[in-house]
Amino acid sequence: MRRAFTEAVDPEIIAEHSHQTVVYRTALRRLAGELKCEPTEDGVLSAREAFEPVVYANRLLKKSRTGLMILDHGFAGGEAMSPPEHSAAIEIPQREVVRLETAAEAVVASCESVVEWLMAVKELLMNAVDGGAVGVKSIAAYRAGLRLREPDPTRAEADFKDLRARAADGHSIRLEGEPLCHSLLLEAAQVCGELGVPLQIHCGFGDPDEDLALTNPLGLRRLFVEPRFDQLKVVLLHCYPFHREAAYLASVFPGVHMDLSLAIPLAAHDGARALNEALGLCPTSKILYATDATRFPEVYLVAAALYREALAGALGRLVDTGWLTPTEAVEAGRQVLSGNARRIYRLT
Amino acid sequence: MRRAFTEAVDPEIIAEHSHQTVVYRTALRRLAGELKCEPTEDGVLSAREAFEPVVYANRLLKKSRTGLMILDHGFAGGEAMSPPEHSAAIEIPQREVVRLETAAEAVVASCESVVEWLMAVKELLMNAVDGGAVGVKSIAAYRAGLRLREPDPTRAEADFKDLRARAADGHSIRLEGEPLCHSLLLEAAQVCGELGVPLQIHCGFGDPDEDLALTNPLGLRRLFVEPRFDQLKVVLLHCYPFHREAAYLASVFPGVHMDLSLAIPLAAHDGARALNEALGLCPTSKILYATDATRFPEVYLVAAALYREALAGALGRLVDTGWLTPTEAVEAGRQVLSGNARRIYRLT
Amino acid sequence: MRRAFTEAVDPEIIAEHSHQTVVYRTALRRLAGELKCEPTEDGVLSAREAFEPVVYANRLLKKSRTGLMILDHGFAGGEAMSPPEHSAAIEIPQREVVRLETAAEAVVASCESVVEWLMAVKELLMNAVDGGAVGVKSIAAYRAGLRLREPDPTRAEADFKDLRARAADGHSIRLEGEPLCHSLLLEAAQVCGELGVPLQIHCGFGDPDEDLALTNPLGLRRLFVEPRFDQLKVVLLHCYPFHREAAYLASVFPGVHMDLSLAIPLAAHDGARALNEALGLCPTSKILYATDATRFPEVYLVAAALYREALAGALGRLVDTGWLTPTEAVEAGRQVLSGNARRIYRLT
Repeated sequence: MRRAFTEAVDPEIIAEHSHQTVVYRTALRRLAGELKCEPTEDGVLSAREAFEPVVYANRLLKKSRTGLMILDHGFAGGEAMSPPEHSAAIEIPQREVVRLETAAEAVVASCESVVEWLMAVKELLMNAVDGGAVGVKSIAAYRAGLRLREPDPTRAEADFKDLRARAADGHSIRLEGEPLCHSLLLEAAQVCGELGVPLQIHCGFGDPDEDLALTNPLGLRRLFVEPRFDQLKVVLLHCYPFHREAAYLASVFPGVHMDLSLAIPLAAHDGARALNEALGLCPTSKILYATDATRFPEVYLVAAALYREALAGALGRLVDTGWLTPTEAVEAGRQVLSGNARRIYRLT
Repeated sequence: MRRAFTEAVDPEIIAEHSHQTVVYRTALRRLAGELKCEPTEDGVLSAREAFEPVVYANRLLKKSRTGLMILDHGFAGGEAMSPPEHSAAIEIPQREVVRLETAAEAVVASCESVVEWLMAVKELLMNAVDGGAVGVKSIAAYRAGLRLREPDPTRAEADFKDLRARAADGHSIRLEGEPLCHSLLLEAAQVCGELGVPLQIHCGFGDPDEDLALTNPLGLRRLFVEPRFDQLKVVLLHCYPFHREAAYLASVFPGVHMDLSLAIPLAAHDGARALNEALGLCPTSKILYATDATRFPEVYLVAAALYREALAGALGRLVDTGWLTPTEAVEAGRQVLSGNARRIYRLT
Repeated sequence: MRRAFTEAVDPEIIAEHSHQTVVYRTALRRLAGELKCEPTEDGVLSAREAFEPVVYANRLLKKSRTGLMILDHGFAGGEAMSPPEHSAAIEIPQREVVRLETAAEAVVASCESVVEWLMAVKELLMNAVDGGAVGVKSIAAYRAGLRLREPDPTRAEADFKDLRARAADGHSIRLEGEPLCHSLLLEAAQVCGELGVPLQIHCGFGDPDEDLALTNPLGLRRLFVEPRFDQLKVVLLHCYPFHREAAYLASVFPGVHMDLSLAIPLAAHDGARALNEALGLCPTSKILYATDATRFPEVYLVAAALYREALAGALGRLVDTGWLTPTEAVEAGRQVLSGNARRIYRLT
C-alpha cells in the first residue's frame, strides 16, 4: 500500500518513511472510510483482500466517478494486465496513449540508422492513432532531461549503433541520452502535430530515476516556437514544482496545456496549493484533471477525491474573494474535469 | 480588450484562451463597474467607444489615483502617441526612462566599433538624464537572457560589424545576443551608477519572445558584487516566478529593488500571493508599486486596483497575525506606493 | 542588533534597509516583551546592556526551551567563545559538528598532494567523531556551488599546489573552486557514510558571498544515487527558496533530510509558508527543527518561537482541514522538534 502513494522505490525509505507523509495518512483514512475498516495499514490491507481483485478495482474506480480513462500501458511491468485484459476487466470506457520511448525501443533492432528508426517510429505512431490511440506520451525527462537542444546527428548515429548492437545480441535495451531521445521527441512532436493528437510530456517530479533539475518544462521552448510544430498540442504532465512556469507557457503558447497529476495526490495540501498557483496565469481552458494512477486502484479513488477537492477549494476561494462569479467557477470546474480533455483529445 | 490582459500575441490563443483567465474575468467586471455597462466584452467595448480616446484615457488614469507616471516610450510601435503628445494629452505628471536597447540600436549606424558605440550610448544616456530622464530600462532578458558573463570582445566586435552592415544597408536592426547586449548592459550599469539614476531590468515572465529560463535575476550577480557598480541602483521589474529570488537579492545588496508589476495584474490572485511571498525577505523600503501598463488605459485602472488590494491584503494579514503593527503596515504601504519610488528616482 | 536578523553584511544596507523587514520588526517586539523594555532598537539595546553577557545569553537560550544544541564552531571569528569556553558558559548540553572546509584548510600546509590531503581530512574527521562530534557540515555552496560533477584531478592538483604555496608563505588561505571543494565534499560524504554521522550541507540562501543560483540541492544528486554513498545521511540546511525541491529529495532518497533554518526566522511569514510547502512531499520523519543561530542569543529566542509557531500553524491547519488527525499532528511535531534529530544524530 505504501508503494501506491510515493515515488520512492528504495526499500529502506518505504519501510521507514513513506508512510509518514501527509498524503499517506489521509489516504489510509479515506480508503478505510470506503472499505469500512480500521484506518490503519493492516485494516485496509485486510479489507481489500476480502475482494476479488477485478471486483475491487472496479468498485474503487467507479467511486472515483471517472467517465473515461486515458491510459498509458507502457509503464507497468509483466504483472500488469495487458491492454485487452484491462479493457475487458475494467468497466469504464478507456482510450490509450502510446508511450513513445517504449514503442521506439521496440523497433531499434529492425532499423539500420537513426533516420530509418525515426521513420519506423512515425509509422508506428500513425498506425497506433489509426488504431484508436488518442495521444503519445514521452518520458524524455527520465531518459535525457528536457533541455531540448538540436541533437548532434553524428552522436545520435553512434549511440544508435551501440543500442542496435545490444538489441541484436538479444539484450533488453534502454533508450537514453540527449542525441537519441531528443531526436525522437522532435520527430514525435512533428508527427503528433500532423496527426492532431496531443503529445504528453512528463515534467517535474517523478521517481528517483530522473534528475529533477533537468525536468523544467521551460526547456521545451523549441516545441512551442518553431514553425514546424505550429499544429502541435502538448500536455505538460505533473509539472510540480515548476507549475508556475508551466502555467506561464500555457498562457502564451496556444498549443500548451498542463495538469497537476502526481502532485495531487502526492504533495497533499501543497498539491492543492500548486493548483491554486497555476490558476494564476493558466487559462481555465488549459488545465486538465489527471491522476497519474496506474497499478493501484486505491490511487484512482484518493487522487480523484483530492483533485476535485483541490479544484473546488481553489475555485471556491476565488469566488469568495471576488475574482470569479459562481457561474464562472462552475464553468471552470467543468472545463478542468472533462471539457478540456474532450476537446484536446477529440473524445466523443 | 483581450490583448490588454495577456502577454500572449498568437492570434489563436487570444481568440480561444486569453479571455479564460481569472484576471480577464475580473478585469471585465471592474471595467464594467467603472463604465456602468454590462460585464461582457461587448459591453465594455461599446461603452469605451462612447468616449473620445484621450478623455477616456484620462478618466481611467485618474481613477487609478496615480500621482506621477514613470514611462518607457521605447516599447510601443507607430500607433502610440509620441512622448510630447502623451505628455500633453495625459493630465498626470510624467517622467521618462530611456529604453536602453532601443536607444543603442539608433546609434549603431554612426559608430565604427563596439567601443565607439558604447561611448555614444554613454553620451546619449547622459544627455537623456540631463534632459530629465529619471532612469534607464533594459530588456536584455529578451535579447540575450540575464546570465551575465564577461562578454567576449572579439565576438562582440564581429556581431557589431554585422549589425552595422545591416543598418548601413537601410535595414531595421535588432540588437541581440550576449556579446553585444551584455556589453551594453554592463556599460549602462556603470553609467547609471555614475549618474545616480536607477537601471530597470526586465526579469521573469513577459511575452513569448523571451525564454523564461534565461530571465532569473540571480544571473545578474555581477552587477551587485563588482566594485565598479558600487553606486548602481537596480530595479528588478516583474520578477515572477522568481520573486523570492529577487526578494533575496534586495535583502542583501544595497542597490537592489524590485516590483511585482505584470504579475499584478496578470497572475491575478497568485500575483497577490507573490507580493506576500516577496515581503518575506525583501525590506519594505525596497518594493515598488508599478503596473507595466502601456497602451491600454484599462490596464492602469485594473492593475492599480489589484496592486493596492494585494498590498492591503498582504499587510493586513501581517497585522492580523501579529507580524506587524497597524502603524508599521501603514508606513510600509506608503513606502511601496510612493515613498520608495520618490527616493530611488529622486522625484520631487 | 540589525546584524542579528539579516544575511546582509554591507554597511549601507544595514544602515538603511535591514531594519525595515517583517522579521526585524517582529523580533524587536518579541525581545522587548522578554526584556520588559520599549519595542525599539534603543530599548532592546539598553535592556541587554543591563545584563552580564553570559547571564543574558543563558537567559535567552533557556527561554528558547532548547534541550540540546548542535553547534558549528567553525563559523565565528576571533571574537567568539572557543568551544570549551562556550561549553562551560552555556548551561545547555551541547554537541559539535565539524566544519568541513575550515578543518580541511588547516591541514593543507602539511600535505603534499590532494590524495594526501583527503587522507588527512579523513583522519581528522574520524578523530573528531571519535572525540564526540555528531556530524560534519559543509559550506561548499559558498566555495564552489552545489552542481556536483566529477572533479578534474589535474585541476584539483594544480589548485592544491597554489593553495599550499600560499599556506607555506604564511598567508591565510581560502579553499574554493569546484576541483578541490567537490573532491573534498565527495570524500567527506564517503567518510560520513562509513562513520554513520550526518553530513550537513548548506543549501539555498545565505550571505551575499554565495551565488544563490548555485545552491539548489538538486545539484547534489550524485550523493544520493551513487552506491558508494549508500550509508550516507545528509541534512540539507536552510533550503529556501528551493525547499520544495529539498522536500522532493527527502521523499525519494532514504538518506536525505532537511530543515528550514535561516528561512525561519529571516523570511518571516514566508518562512512559515515554506515549512507548510515542504510538508507537502517531505515525510514528517525527515524535517528537522533548527535555527542557524550563532553569535546572537536573541536569534535563538526569536527563531525558536517562530519555528514552533510555524510548525504549530502548519500542523494545526492540516488538522483543521482534515489532512491529519490531532494525534498525527502531535506526533509529527515531536518528530520535527526533537525525535528526528535524536535518531539521525544518534543522541542519547
